[in-house]
Amino acid sequence: MGGVINEPGHVLLTPGPLTTSDRVRAAATRDFGSWDQDFNDVTAEVRAAIVRAAGGMLGRELTCVPMQGSGTFSVEAMVRTFVPQSGGLLVASNGAYGERMARIAQVAGLRVRVIATPWDQPIDPGQIARELREHPGITHVGLIHCETSTGLLNPLPDIADAVHACGARLLLDAMSTFGALDTLPDHPGVEAAVAASGKCLEGLPGVGFAIARRESLAAADGRCSSLSLDLADQHAYMERTGQWRYTPPTHVVAALREAMLAFEEEGGRAVRLVRYQENSRALADGAASLGLAPYLPDALQAPIIHTFYAPASPRWDFSAFYQEVKARGFILYPGKLTAEDTFRVGCIGQVTPQTMAQACGAIEDALVEIGVRRRGAVAGPTTLAPSRLSIRDRKIPR
Amino acid sequence: MGGVINEPGHVLLTPGPLTTSDRVRAAATRDFGSWDQDFNDVTAEVRAAIVRAAGGMLGRELTCVPMQGSGTFSVEAMVRTFVPQSGGLLVASNGAYGERMARIAQVAGLRVRVIATPWDQPIDPGQIARELREHPGITHVGLIHCETSTGLLNPLPDIADAVHACGARLLLDAMSTFGALDTLPDHPGVEAAVAASGKCLEGLPGVGFAIARRESLAAADGRCSSLSLDLADQHAYMERTGQWRYTPPTHVVAALREAMLAFEEEGGRAVRLVRYQENSRALADGAASLGLAPYLPDALQAPIIHTFYAPASPRWDFSAFYQEVKARGFILYPGKLTAEDTFRVGCIGQVTPQTMAQACGAIEDALVEIGVRRRGAVAGPTTLAPSRLSIRDRKIPR
Repeated sequence: MGGVINEPGHVLLTPGPLTTSDRVRAAATRDFGSWDQDFNDVTAEVRAAIVRAAGGMLGRELTCVPMQGSGTFSVEAMVRTFVPQSGGLLVASNGAYGERMARIAQVAGLRVRVIATPWDQPIDPGQIARELREHPGITHVGLIHCETSTGLLNPLPDIADAVHACGARLLLDAMSTFGALDTLPDHPGVEAAVAASGKCLEGLPGVGFAIARRESLAAADGRCSSLSLDLADQHAYMERTGQWRYTPPTHVVAALREAMLAFEEEGGRAVRLVRYQENSRALADGAASLGLAPYLPDALQAPIIHTFYAPASPRWDFSAFYQEVKARGFILYPGKLTAEDTFRVGCIGQVTPQTMAQACGAIEDALVEIGVRRRGAVAGPTTLAPSRLSIRDRKIPR
Repeated sequence: MGGVINEPGHVLLTPGPLTTSDRVRAAATRDFGSWDQDFNDVTAEVRAAIVRAAGGMLGRELTCVPMQGSGTFSVEAMVRTFVPQSGGLLVASNGAYGERMARIAQVAGLRVRVIATPWDQPIDPGQIARELREHPGITHVGLIHCETSTGLLNPLPDIADAVHACGARLLLDAMSTFGALDTLPDHPGVEAAVAASGKCLEGLPGVGFAIARRESLAAADGRCSSLSLDLADQHAYMERTGQWRYTPPTHVVAALREAMLAFEEEGGRAVRLVRYQENSRALADGAASLGLAPYLPDALQAPIIHTFYAPASPRWDFSAFYQEVKARGFILYPGKLTAEDTFRVGCIGQVTPQTMAQACGAIEDALVEIGVRRRGAVAGPTTLAPSRLSIRDRKIPR
């Protein structure tokens, strides 16, 4: 038996799947029986470690409910499990993931309202409070903690306070922040948060999870209009049997256990956040030195993923640029704005400030290669002007 | 970089997750960017190989739509994508998976009728035809090809003919048969079939898929009452972009590509079926020589998983038995019948008739160890009488 694990391939500077460690990928190479106690132990360890990673003071009141599928499946599971047919969901949206959460609720036949905030502006807690007062039938507010469509960090504490003050409950998409930023698990205004294995926890993609109070899940019993995506049923079954209701992705879950061990060895959320902040700073500095204009002001930028304007050069060609960067070992991410030409660079995963500096070197070389930049040119607005000088003038992408 | 993959652990004699090959698990150890062309190529290769594995003469009319999550997620996706709100689903059920499909449809708010057949009897095509004539509003029939709750193989060709003759369409749960048995992909009565990565294709668990005609998927556009589980939307997006709508389980998909290569190298479905039939025969013979009574008559037994009655000994203790077999390297599967004491042994995965013979040796040793059998005893009804002598008398488990 045995064999050598593959080369990990390129460094992924994406919001997940991201670059994982050899030990995490190696942990995915054992076949577990999905009903066997060895695997039940894996599941229990993962759940407990995720509750610890959530932090907060609620202790045994909080629980973790894993859910098969991508993070979006967990978002849909959260919406369908917690929002009653007699209630309603207000989605505070300033990006593609907010729009997706609203669409999930609409397709599920739930009553849904949307606050459509421009993508370069944070959600306004006061606007949420006004909407909740005007529409007392709304029971839940949906929020994306960090909108990875831009990299913007929404002001979660103020929003949670506003939601709580109005008697509603927050459903938090913490996909790209859980494990690095505080997701306020024991804030009284927060009903649940969801995230996934392949983001800041640095596992392999393939499983999501919700963090919620046990009493919230018990209260949601029988509410979900999907069998597969019912978090309350998944939780009740898992508590009773130690097993998953339906076949778990055993190898991905085993890798997540290893990722949680590595997370705790690194020092947990606070230490991981510092590393990501250092990565983010190295990336921002390197990009600035190349004259690449950031989409967001520093105050709104989460240390997760950055959006940069494409240079305003006639020679700019994202596809050629991407290939040149990839040839140097790094995978970037396309932009998600429709009205402007942008690209994204993630700073999470098994990467360090040194990695980010190397990536900026690869970006510089690629810009030279495609003819957008002279090698060693000094940065400045005339060197690499963004395709729009003012973000105020642009249309909001839909 | 590099490292040694873990020992594969125990031999899994379960209906999936099952024992996989080193090469398949090793293929799960590369980080792919989910938007990168390298991964788009993986997805395209997997989809094409699965269509080839389906067989049939429809060629480019057939397509494969992968779906994140366990096989149950793909069953729910199939039901929600193809059954219109104005239609109805008749589930022909003779096991736990039939009951689950009916529950999926009920929770989704669809009109559903159930033919509840005893678990040791095959579905009767004539009964389906009668139900369809009596209830012309039913548009679809749901069927489990092999009920892994018992191991029973339903008569798919006759059922597909009956459904087609009545003007309805079959939705086939081929979870534990696809890749080994013929799932009739181009039968005019079959609308779609679903299966998953971790069954007879011998990949890792974590992704399912549907096989359907392109025109059926196009006709189902906008019908699904779940965003995540919409096969028509997933298909349209994948055809347009080469990508998944939401984060794919990249490592599991890469392992599935390797599993499909191995599948074709082995000789495809026909050759795999022969191996499973040989495994099944070796298991049945070995169990018979130990006096273990099979739940199903041979004519109803699929070469996938066998159900055996627990020996009628007062010393029988499934948990102790399971542990003794596990200590000898094999993972069995608990029974799923509620009214009788049974256990299950799978015969699919990277196992051979030799493996099954070794497993029967481990089962014999375990029976001796827990005091149910004398070593080397000759088989016979008095040696290891099943806990019920006649399967006719038993209650149907619900």
